[in-house]
Amino acid sequence: MEAIGKHRWAIADGYIPPGSTGAGRELQSHEAACILNTGNSDAHVAITIFFKDREPAGPYRVAVNARRTLHLRFNDLHDPEPVPRGTDYAVVLESDVPIVVQHTRLDSRQAELALLSTIAYGMD
Amino acid sequence: MEAIGKHRWAIADGYIPPGSTGAGRELQSHEAACILNTGNSDAHVAITIFFKDREPAGPYRVAVNARRTLHLRFNDLHDPEPVPRGTDYAVVLESDVPIVVQHTRLDSRQAELALLSTIAYGMD
Amino acid sequence: MEAIGKHRWAIADGYIPPGSTGAGRELQSHEAACILNTGNSDAHVAITIFFKDREPAGPYRVAVNARRTLHLRFNDLHDPEPVPRGTDYAVVLESDVPIVVQHTRLDSRQAELALLSTIAYGMD
Amino acid sequence: MEAIGKHRWAIADGYIPPGSTGAGRELQSHEAACILNTGNSDAHVAITIFFKDREPAGPYRVAVNARRTLHLRFNDLHDPEPVPRGTDYAVVLESDVPIVVQHTRLDSRQAELALLSTIAYGMD
Repeated sequence: MEAIGKHRWAIADGYIPPGSTGAGRELQSHEAACILNTGNSDAHVAITIFFKDREPAGPYRVAVNARRTLHLRFNDLHDPEPVPRGTDYAVVLESDVPIVVQHTRLDSRQAELALLSTIAYGMD
Repeated sequence: MEAIGKHRWAIADGYIPPGSTGAGRELQSHEAACILNTGNSDAHVAITIFFKDREPAGPYRVAVNARRTLHLRFNDLHDPEPVPRGTDYAVVLESDVPIVVQHTRLDSRQAELALLSTIAYGMD
Repeated sequence: MEAIGKHRWAIADGYIPPGSTGAGRELQSHEAACILNTGNSDAHVAITIFFKDREPAGPYRVAVNARRTLHLRFNDLHDPEPVPRGTDYAVVLESDVPIVVQHTRLDSRQAELALLSTIAYGMD
Repeated sequence: MEAIGKHRWAIADGYIPPGSTGAGRELQSHEAACILNTGNSDAHVAITIFFKDREPAGPYRVAVNARRTLHLRFNDLHDPEPVPRGTDYAVVLESDVPIVVQHTRLDSRQAELALLSTIAYGMD
């Protein structure tokens, strides 16, 4: 399939809830950038994290293989530094091929989970 | 009414929760592509499902009649193969006429339901 | 302020939950099209409701005054006919001046509420 | 990084829930415009609040420093006047440099929280 989407995407509302009540990785509070690469070339994505009161962190580097999707949890980013919990942040993703990015958060701090999701802001 | 929308749409955050607590089909955990065809010609839609670690599945084929909406649950897709539960996936929908697609998930794994929704990413 | 937005908007995932557990109008299950008219002319909006298996209903007609917002609950539409509960539908809004439309649902069928929201699909 | 985004953004569904059940500022019912300024110049943002039945309020003025994000709670706006609770409103943000805006609400009126989020409507 043709490569669909944009080369750059922004997520303004980053926040990893600092606690969880569910059991297991699936119900752990987390925040994800869901990345779709429909094309026939692997996508190399550089991620920059912006904060309220310090210089940005990154780039974090991930690859999304051709014709694959990666639901990347920001909880899992550690290099060059972890993404802090309970802290406002924002994200820019820059890819060498077109991709589609959707932003989703699962919050299980209280006994029942809450979900939010939105298409990210895409641009070339 | 004129046919409104785009010919191709992408949903990056596909995930069918693997359990439910609500009673009946309405409160069953599910994920849907809500498709609107405002025009006067039937829409023939080919759906491709992308995964993290295997080649895409599909095409799944659905029709949305002229001047109708179809709230398609991915849970209900079986041909050429079911969409796995509890697995990250992504979706591309390709239509022969313009349509509008919105993505919605109802998660009732815990005792109270959670909802997410976003306009999908549209392009011609 | 200048009139901001688009003349036509589509919402593909219409659904009014058929029950509620909260007390009062605010916690009643409902679905709304939040309409913003930033300009200096009143907006006259014609709304068409699409269904799965019958011809569309409408037009419903609402006005949004200059420099005002209207959070229109589909529950409150009665002319030419009520919008059925527990039924999949979709919506097109057509305005004579540019407006911005956001779609929100509050679901209080179970003991705790769930929310979804997305910018609608806008076009001229 | 280059300044990413648009100069003007609209949020049509403004509503600050009038109560909370969670403990502390983090679980307090609130509504936020998450603003990302990726560029190398500070962003000066003028905010106008629209209502159902009165003239707009504002401008409220906030700054988002270069390479920073600000998750602005409408609850915290007081000058020229507080944003009323339990009241429908809408928002326009106008910036002198490109920004990205995402709209998020946390509702903790009932015992478990609910979340909604969407990219705002951007335009130049």
